[in-house]
Amino acid sequence: MSIIKKVEFLLKTYSYYKPFHIKGGISAQSTDIEVKIKCEDGTIGFGEASPSFRVNGEKPEMIMTMEDFCQQTLIGQNVKEYRKIFQITDKLFAVPSLKAAIQYAVLDAFASYCQMEVYQILGGATKSIKTDKTVGIETLDNRIKEVKDIVGQGFDVIKIKVGEDVKQDIEFMTSIKDLIKDKKIIVDANMGYSVKEAINFANSTYKAGIDIDVFEQPVYMTDFEGLKSVRYNCPFSVAADESAKTKFDVFRLLKDDAVDYINIKLMKSGISDALSIVEIVKSSNKKLMIGCMGESSLGINQSVHFALGTGAFDFCDLDSHLMIKEEEFRGKFKQKGDEIFVD
Amino acid sequence: MSIIKKVEFLLKTYSYYKPFHIKGGISAQSTDIEVKIKCEDGTIGFGEASPSFRVNGEKPEMIMTMEDFCQQTLIGQNVKEYRKIFQITDKLFAVPSLKAAIQYAVLDAFASYCQMEVYQILGGATKSIKTDKTVGIETLDNRIKEVKDIVGQGFDVIKIKVGEDVKQDIEFMTSIKDLIKDKKIIVDANMGYSVKEAINFANSTYKAGIDIDVFEQPVYMTDFEGLKSVRYNCPFSVAADESAKTKFDVFRLLKDDAVDYINIKLMKSGISDALSIVEIVKSSNKKLMIGCMGESSLGINQSVHFALGTGAFDFCDLDSHLMIKEEEFRGKFKQKGDEIFVD
Repeated sequence: MSIIKKVEFLLKTYSYYKPFHIKGGISAQSTDIEVKIKCEDGTIGFGEASPSFRVNGEKPEMIMTMEDFCQQTLIGQNVKEYRKIFQITDKLFAVPSLKAAIQYAVLDAFASYCQMEVYQILGGATKSIKTDKTVGIETLDNRIKEVKDIVGQGFDVIKIKVGEDVKQDIEFMTSIKDLIKDKKIIVDANMGYSVKEAINFANSTYKAGIDIDVFEQPVYMTDFEGLKSVRYNCPFSVAADESAKTKFDVFRLLKDDAVDYINIKLMKSGISDALSIVEIVKSSNKKLMIGCMGESSLGINQSVHFALGTGAFDFCDLDSHLMIKEEEFRGKFKQKGDEIFVD
Repeated sequence: MSIIKKVEFLLKTYSYYKPFHIKGGISAQSTDIEVKIKCEDGTIGFGEASPSFRVNGEKPEMIMTMEDFCQQTLIGQNVKEYRKIFQITDKLFAVPSLKAAIQYAVLDAFASYCQMEVYQILGGATKSIKTDKTVGIETLDNRIKEVKDIVGQGFDVIKIKVGEDVKQDIEFMTSIKDLIKDKKIIVDANMGYSVKEAINFANSTYKAGIDIDVFEQPVYMTDFEGLKSVRYNCPFSVAADESAKTKFDVFRLLKDDAVDYINIKLMKSGISDALSIVEIVKSSNKKLMIGCMGESSLGINQSVHFALGTGAFDFCDLDSHLMIKEEEFRGKFKQKGDEIFVD
C-alpha cells in the first residue's frame, strides 16, 4: 500500500519579478525540479529541488540525469520506513537539492498516508512563523527604495545582501539607519569579504549606531578559522551558511566554536542532515535560522513544514516564492504579509 | 480529539529472578512507574519510568509526587504537537526517567492516533535488532556458569559487569577466554575503576588474547578527562554511559573526542535528548549503543521502538525484562532468543 510505485522528475523554470543580485551572481530566473512520488495505493508525495551551482556545485541538468537511478533505487521502498530511505538517499551528497526533494516527497507521502501533515510528523512544535524579506545588491538609491518598500509591507525582519564593495555597503547601511531602527536586521555577505573587510564592516556599522542581529557568512565557505576570527572580533552574532552544508560541517564548526548561528537550507542538507543539524546546534547552545535558494511555493513549503514541525528557528528567511512568478500557489500553508501559518 | 484528557501514574514493583549485582549496589527488585495518557477520543498512550538513584539521583517516591504537576501541565495539550510537549517536559530534567515515560506515552498515543506504530513515526529504519544478555558480579564460579548459560541460550553479544576488584575481574576474563572467543563482548565497569586500573584491566585482557568490543564507563561519570585518557591508552573502544545523560553532556564528550561510543538510555535522557544524541553521535563519526535500567517489558518496549525507528545502534543491551518476574508481557514487539522484532 505505502510502497513506492512511481518516481517522476519535472523541470520547471520560473522568472524573477526583477533580477536578483547577490555577491557571486545575478539571477533572472530559477530552474527547479519537481519530484513526484506515487505509492501503490495512490498516495502522492511532492518535493522540489532548487539546485545551486554557487553553493552546492550542482546544475539542473545533473539532477535530471538522476531520474532513472532514483527510480531504480526507490521503487519498491516503503514510505513508512522513511529513515531507511533517508539512508539510501544520503548517498546523493553530490546533488543535495535532489536529496532534499526526494526525502521531502517521501515524508509528504508518509504524512498523507497517516492523514497527517508533514509538520505534525516532524513534531508539530508551532503553527506559525515569520519570514524576512531580502534586499539584493543594487545602486544606493534602489537599495534604499527597496528597504522602504519592505518596511511598508510590514516585515519586521529585513535581510540585506552585501559583500561586493565594503565601502558602498557601509555607506548604504549608514544611510538606512533611521529606516531600520525598529527592525531586526540580517546582513548576508555571501562569502564576499576578507576577514579584515568583514571586521571593518561590522565595527563601522556598529560605530554608526546600527544593530545587526545576524552577520551571515562574511568569508569564504572553507574558511572556518576566518568565521571564528570575525566572530571574536566583531560585536554581532556570526552565522555560517555556505560553510554549513552537512551535519559533519556543522559538528566541526561548533566543535571549533566558530559561529553563533547556523543557517539551515534544505537544499544544502536534505531533510536527514537538516534534522541532525537542528539537534547539534541545540545541544551546543547555539542558534538557528532557515533559508532558501530559488524555490517556488512547492519548495518553500518544505522549509515551512520543517520549521513548523521542529520549532527550532530564531529567524526564517523563506521568501524566494515571493520573488518569482508562479502560475499557481502550491504550498500547504497560508501567508499574510510576513506571517506564514497553518490552520 | 487528540487532546490529552487524563494522565495517570501507577507504581509497580518487580522482583529479579536472582539479585542483580553491579558495581555500586545489588538489586533484588525494580520499582517502576507506569504512565498512562488518555486523549479525548479515547486514544491511550503508555510509558514507563524506571528511576535510577545511582545514575540520575532520582527515587520512585520523587516521581510519584509529580503526578499532579504533570496533570496540570499536560492536560489540554495535543499529542499531534509532540515536540511542543517535549519542550514542556524537558523541564523535568531532575527526574529524567519520568521525562522519558511521558514523552514516550505521548508518542505512543500519537502513533495510535495515526494508526501507526511508534517505530514508524520515528522513521521505521529496521524491523529487527539483537540484544545482549548481562553477567553480574558474582563469585568466579558463578560468573563462569552464567557465561556458559548465556552462550548456551544463543546470545551473540555478552555484557560483563566488572569494576569492584580489578584483579578478580582480570582473572575472570582470562578464565572465560575460550568460552567467549566467537562472541562480541561489552565490558561495563559502571564507573568502578580509577584511570590506571582501567588501563591495566584493558591491557591485561588484551595481552591475554581477549578482544573486547566496547569498554563501558571505566571511570567516574564526571571524569571526562579520565575517559579520554583510558581511550587513548587502551586498545579497545571506550563508551560513555553514566557520563552521557543529556545532549549537552554528549556534545561536550564528543567535542573533547573523549569516547568512541555513547550508550543511550531513555531513562537518562528522555526521548527528546535521545533523539539529539543520535544525531550528534552520527555527525561526529562515533558509534551508539542503547541500554536500560530496570524496565519491565512495557519500558523495554520504549527502547525497542526507539532503536527500530532510528536504526542507529551497533549494540543493544535491552535485557532487563528478561531478568525480572512479570505477570504479563506488555511489549509491542516479539522476541526469540536474542532477536527482538516487529512484524
